[in-house]
Amino acid sequence: MDIKNIIDKKALGKKLTKQEINYFIEGYLNGTITDYQASALLMAIRINGMTENETFALTGAMLNSGIKMDFSDLGLIVDKHSTGGVSDTTTITLVPICMACGVKMFKMSGRGLGHTGGTIDKLESFTGFKADIDIEKAKELVRKNGGCIISATKNLAPADKKIYALRDTTATVESIPLIASSIMSKKLAGGANKIVLDVKYGNGAIIKAKKDAIYLAKLMVKIGENAGAKMDYIIDDMNEPLGYNIGNKLEAYEAIEVLSGKQGKLTNTTLKLAGKCISLGLNIPYEDAVQMAKDAIKSGKALSALKTIVKAQGGSTALFNGLTLKPKLVVTSPFSGTLQKIECARLGSLVGQLGANRQKVTDEIDYNVGVKTFHKLGDKINVGDVLFEIYAKTKAQANEFANEFLDCYKVY
Amino acid sequence: MDIKNIIDKKALGKKLTKQEINYFIEGYLNGTITDYQASALLMAIRINGMTENETFALTGAMLNSGIKMDFSDLGLIVDKHSTGGVSDTTTITLVPICMACGVKMFKMSGRGLGHTGGTIDKLESFTGFKADIDIEKAKELVRKNGGCIISATKNLAPADKKIYALRDTTATVESIPLIASSIMSKKLAGGANKIVLDVKYGNGAIIKAKKDAIYLAKLMVKIGENAGAKMDYIIDDMNEPLGYNIGNKLEAYEAIEVLSGKQGKLTNTTLKLAGKCISLGLNIPYEDAVQMAKDAIKSGKALSALKTIVKAQGGSTALFNGLTLKPKLVVTSPFSGTLQKIECARLGSLVGQLGANRQKVTDEIDYNVGVKTFHKLGDKINVGDVLFEIYAKTKAQANEFANEFLDCYKVY
Repeated sequence: MDIKNIIDKKALGKKLTKQEINYFIEGYLNGTITDYQASALLMAIRINGMTENETFALTGAMLNSGIKMDFSDLGLIVDKHSTGGVSDTTTITLVPICMACGVKMFKMSGRGLGHTGGTIDKLESFTGFKADIDIEKAKELVRKNGGCIISATKNLAPADKKIYALRDTTATVESIPLIASSIMSKKLAGGANKIVLDVKYGNGAIIKAKKDAIYLAKLMVKIGENAGAKMDYIIDDMNEPLGYNIGNKLEAYEAIEVLSGKQGKLTNTTLKLAGKCISLGLNIPYEDAVQMAKDAIKSGKALSALKTIVKAQGGSTALFNGLTLKPKLVVTSPFSGTLQKIECARLGSLVGQLGANRQKVTDEIDYNVGVKTFHKLGDKINVGDVLFEIYAKTKAQANEFANEFLDCYKVY
Repeated sequence: MDIKNIIDKKALGKKLTKQEINYFIEGYLNGTITDYQASALLMAIRINGMTENETFALTGAMLNSGIKMDFSDLGLIVDKHSTGGVSDTTTITLVPICMACGVKMFKMSGRGLGHTGGTIDKLESFTGFKADIDIEKAKELVRKNGGCIISATKNLAPADKKIYALRDTTATVESIPLIASSIMSKKLAGGANKIVLDVKYGNGAIIKAKKDAIYLAKLMVKIGENAGAKMDYIIDDMNEPLGYNIGNKLEAYEAIEVLSGKQGKLTNTTLKLAGKCISLGLNIPYEDAVQMAKDAIKSGKALSALKTIVKAQGGSTALFNGLTLKPKLVVTSPFSGTLQKIECARLGSLVGQLGANRQKVTDEIDYNVGVKTFHKLGDKINVGDVLFEIYAKTKAQANEFANEFLDCYKVY
């Protein structure tokens, strides 16, 4: 086999065989296939696409490039994956609800980069919280408490990691088969055999069009089922932030609010995901599962489960007593009308630039910065209404960002 | 400007601006744009194509990446470029004819690699011939004799050189806009302002379909005219070797035969090219130019001009007295019928493997090996007819290759 012929086939829009895809992944990982050959092939895939069978093969090859975790000794494990959004705290709300309902969650999460925050960063705003826990210790936490949320291990699907880094610099991220195989190779290597997908679309998500999100979700379901997993999904609108708060501690606090009964979009999405996870985990109808999730919030059991996670992983529970942060600037509306559009990714980026998120992986982040919003799309806004509370490092920084935040809202 | 956005635009099939193309070429040459980003962009170009304006811009950017030669002190200079074929000795036949007709030729040629031979390698079979001559000394030869054939200098269009090396390993060679801009950037940097293109098609050429060859030729003519050059072209069938001989000394000898009056396809193509070059060079009608070329052969002036080139560049003229090589094996036909198909590229590759050509640029070549053929497509062949004289290193090597040569002929 020869990589040039494989690239040429895909450039001509032909199908690659499983053997050719394995040859590519093995060769790229061991260095006999170069970065520039891989990026040429990835571009040909971005433009000419892949069939389902090719996508299954690519997922399998990446999945098999590293360790495969096995949680069969823990009993049933349900996993959830979100394609990423702004003010998306659903992992922190979902896991305790599932635990409260008797569904075990061994959740591995990531850190933030770019315009989307990371679950682990948000959890670390519970001072002292430890996410870098080894697998055996994390298994003990699941056995004892029913769940944990830890950093993703580095050995899962290393081929995906190498390919993703390359895609990120070569404009080959936006390919549905590549996105699907990247996510699913990690999820399947992560040992889950029941997986619920939260696929976002809109201007705050990688996928812009709803139909593409549906296509991606269904493709990932097929990949998972092809590998023997039970799958379900929701499609979630990311044309506005999911919650009201953006920034690590602000979002951690909003998760506490949701588990304390606060209503809104973040709660709705949490309940949908919980319904899917509990339904898969306990093998019960979706509607019954949603009711269980609601009850777990109402009874306080879900909030209590979050406190259990935080304590078990060394975090302070002070935030459960209330948010003590004060905004450096309160921005009121200079215009009146209806909130017609929110530049959601830009909002996320701005909060990142305040210091909430890394611009490079080596950056330090600030858990306390962020922004609190008060409106959703379609809301009426009057001159003088509070639009943003800016939690910046300094008053000067808040002033510097104020106009940019305002500019994310299109009111007319 | 950002290379990721540029790659993304081309991946979506959009047009790049001149500024974006310049940014790419400058960045790639100075190393701020990586090989893997360049190969992703080249693949997007291979699949989604480029407009004429984009191709002009790419040619200009590569042309401007190095020195630009200037022959205005020599008066009119005509140049010729062939896209490459098997048994294509037309540079060695054409240049002396043009010189004999008063058209100055400052010809820079290349060495062989893969299945096509190189003019410089063929000329070096005149023992002692020197092709690595500096520009000023070569100009003196043109002033004195009317022409020279030297190795291409290394400083022409360095961006093209870097890009071509990348394309060769990433399956991005087969793109007509990339082929056109690669050839034309070197030709225009080479200082010619009257250029005749010899675009080959068929199974012995890079371009397989005649219509693609015509498209490539017309595109290169437009690029040249856009840069202010006078252009003309011929389209030449490469579904069979152009001459009868393949291999360096064998081809050099066939050039002498053509200039001595031997008829055939090689002579026909030579006369067409000479007609175009002389017509452009002297500004006379094509038919008159072809007649001048025929007369230059008949009178012996063209042969004499070749002898002048060889002598002036230090080569022995012994070959003008006759070919003294003897074949190691004479292969006769085991079949009878009509020669329906010749695997022309494979024939060229086999001669290369005998030792006539480099497989890697660092390989040493053997000037004496090669094959002499006796038939063209459509010829009747009887059992026992001589099909090949194999000029191998040893009898054993000739035997080893005999069946492979036979297999290149489809007779039925």
